[in-house]
Amino acid sequence: MKIHRPTLIIDEKKAKKNIAFMANKAKKSNVLFRPHFKTHQSATVAQWFREIGVTQIAVSSLAMAHYFYKHGWNDIHIAFPYNLLEHEELNELAKHIKLRVSIESQQALTHLKSHIKNPIQYMIKIDVGYGRTGINASNWASILSLADQENSICQFSGLMAHAGHTYDAHGLFEIENVHKKSLQKLEILIDRFVEPPFVSYGDTPSCSVSENFNFISEFRCGNFVYYDLNQVEIGSCIVDQIAVAMACPIVAEHYDRNEVVIYGGAVHFSKDFIMTPYKHFGQIVSFTQNGWEILDGVYLKKISQEHGIIHLPKNFDKNQFSLSNIIGVLPVHSCLTADLMIGQQTLNGLPIYKMIRI
Amino acid sequence: MKIHRPTLIIDEKKAKKNIAFMANKAKKSNVLFRPHFKTHQSATVAQWFREIGVTQIAVSSLAMAHYFYKHGWNDIHIAFPYNLLEHEELNELAKHIKLRVSIESQQALTHLKSHIKNPIQYMIKIDVGYGRTGINASNWASILSLADQENSICQFSGLMAHAGHTYDAHGLFEIENVHKKSLQKLEILIDRFVEPPFVSYGDTPSCSVSENFNFISEFRCGNFVYYDLNQVEIGSCIVDQIAVAMACPIVAEHYDRNEVVIYGGAVHFSKDFIMTPYKHFGQIVSFTQNGWEILDGVYLKKISQEHGIIHLPKNFDKNQFSLSNIIGVLPVHSCLTADLMIGQQTLNGLPIYKMIRI
Repeated sequence: MKIHRPTLIIDEKKAKKNIAFMANKAKKSNVLFRPHFKTHQSATVAQWFREIGVTQIAVSSLAMAHYFYKHGWNDIHIAFPYNLLEHEELNELAKHIKLRVSIESQQALTHLKSHIKNPIQYMIKIDVGYGRTGINASNWASILSLADQENSICQFSGLMAHAGHTYDAHGLFEIENVHKKSLQKLEILIDRFVEPPFVSYGDTPSCSVSENFNFISEFRCGNFVYYDLNQVEIGSCIVDQIAVAMACPIVAEHYDRNEVVIYGGAVHFSKDFIMTPYKHFGQIVSFTQNGWEILDGVYLKKISQEHGIIHLPKNFDKNQFSLSNIIGVLPVHSCLTADLMIGQQTLNGLPIYKMIRI
Repeated sequence: MKIHRPTLIIDEKKAKKNIAFMANKAKKSNVLFRPHFKTHQSATVAQWFREIGVTQIAVSSLAMAHYFYKHGWNDIHIAFPYNLLEHEELNELAKHIKLRVSIESQQALTHLKSHIKNPIQYMIKIDVGYGRTGINASNWASILSLADQENSICQFSGLMAHAGHTYDAHGLFEIENVHKKSLQKLEILIDRFVEPPFVSYGDTPSCSVSENFNFISEFRCGNFVYYDLNQVEIGSCIVDQIAVAMACPIVAEHYDRNEVVIYGGAVHFSKDFIMTPYKHFGQIVSFTQNGWEILDGVYLKKISQEHGIIHLPKNFDKNQFSLSNIIGVLPVHSCLTADLMIGQQTLNGLPIYKMIRI
């Protein structure tokens, strides 16, 4: 592996397995598959989805929609509240592709209808308990009213929800519990419609774990393509499903305090951490012929801008942790880590191209 | 202000005042000024330093050294442990400019001496208590030995230290205390040298607060150019000295729970937070004719990838927090925030160009 500086390594086989798993889960559940591309933000990885028949995607910004449009994607949902200030660029993009936006207020819908001249679809964002965005699912009067305001340009295409509070869950039971309660809220709402609306749904924990998707029409999850330590902690996956590891050179040995320092810090990983078994920013792995292996008890203990401090257990092997060796770090939050890294490649050294956020 | 998406706004006057303050502090203390450019990473802001006579700089990676070399800087210290794997690029850069690297082991120095063919300077990194990188200041035998190994290519140019543990301080007294103890360790070490070596030093808290720099030869601090909430909490500056604010559009109103949602999340701010008065990711300001004003009790409460949730106090003014308004966020950690943002401009709308990390 010819690595000189922090480089995000994608295990293509694992990522493709994760993609196939979720595509099959959707199929089995009789649900459409519209993966969220905010995690990888990559035209290369997008191609892996296309290979198994994916044509519809979700993104988290207009800039990301533009990027994927330029790479041949023409059915895109911007799963982020309609930003009134970007209406011109949005209108321009709607000229070229099938575009879906997220609406959660009368004011936003009125603005959309008066500023967009090219056909566009809108979904109503429902808050099923996460408390970030969306209209409370119990506020059915507002929701029905928004659904009933389509015209020839702005077409109502259904409800969308994100049970992001599954990220506070620990273990399958808690994930299922949050998921179940979210579905119950949606179900009561849907009963108010004359005809059941299309429902887009999908946080990675729920979609990974549950088998119960009833009236859900579409999966919109994203993180599953790579997974990460946070998802392991939640219970969405096992550590072997994590498809990304940051390759980092060791730049200083501090064996006396059971530490080495790597070139790899907050500008590569961001600063999400987990607390088990104690606060850390990543699990260390060693690269092998075809992938990587967990190094038990070896953690990314502390990070500053470009430095990372690796904690080593007693009786570690100095050969493994000597100056200029490359070690791998499984990230706590792969979305943020992938967002930060332009330098990405597969285990075989093939480049992974991604968007540059403007 | 014509802003459509998260954009980092630099208050040029404040930044220039911060630069002048630190340049004067150095002058007054009879210390050379080699500012660290890792915070702004910007050719535009670099020019503001050049205007007051700065010609020597520090950076935190070889890639950053390349960037500033391309923008006309020719005396650069890479204040990060010599990465053996990048020796070819380092050797290439040393052809063109006066380059200084950081060494903290015999193995690294031996490697440097056998792989670099163009004149280069090396500094020995001393750990004065921070515990990240460097040789413990009490290990004077190793340090003296490394200092005594220069040849015609690799020239010893002094000691360097970073009292990064001032970042754990709260208030002037604690900063001064850490600083004083760090200097004491260095002083004992320096006494072992026949001739007192050149000493490069400089975390932002110590350089901002202390007046005592004795035998220090050079300031190498960086964050002071923008400062941030973390520095306010430490006691390095007051909030009025913070020279950056992220301009973010409001994309959802949730007045019922005293919140609005902004376009602005972890991919714009990174995830450092502070705990006073309670956990938050940024202080909200409103932009005025010539700058911004603090909005008391308004905080960035929670962030996900692109969303930020703003906490509003009781009796807030709805006009100030209505859909599509732009509000400002003073960042917790300006180095990470500036690193993330390609979209930067001054209050007057002039572009701030910065490097793109590869």
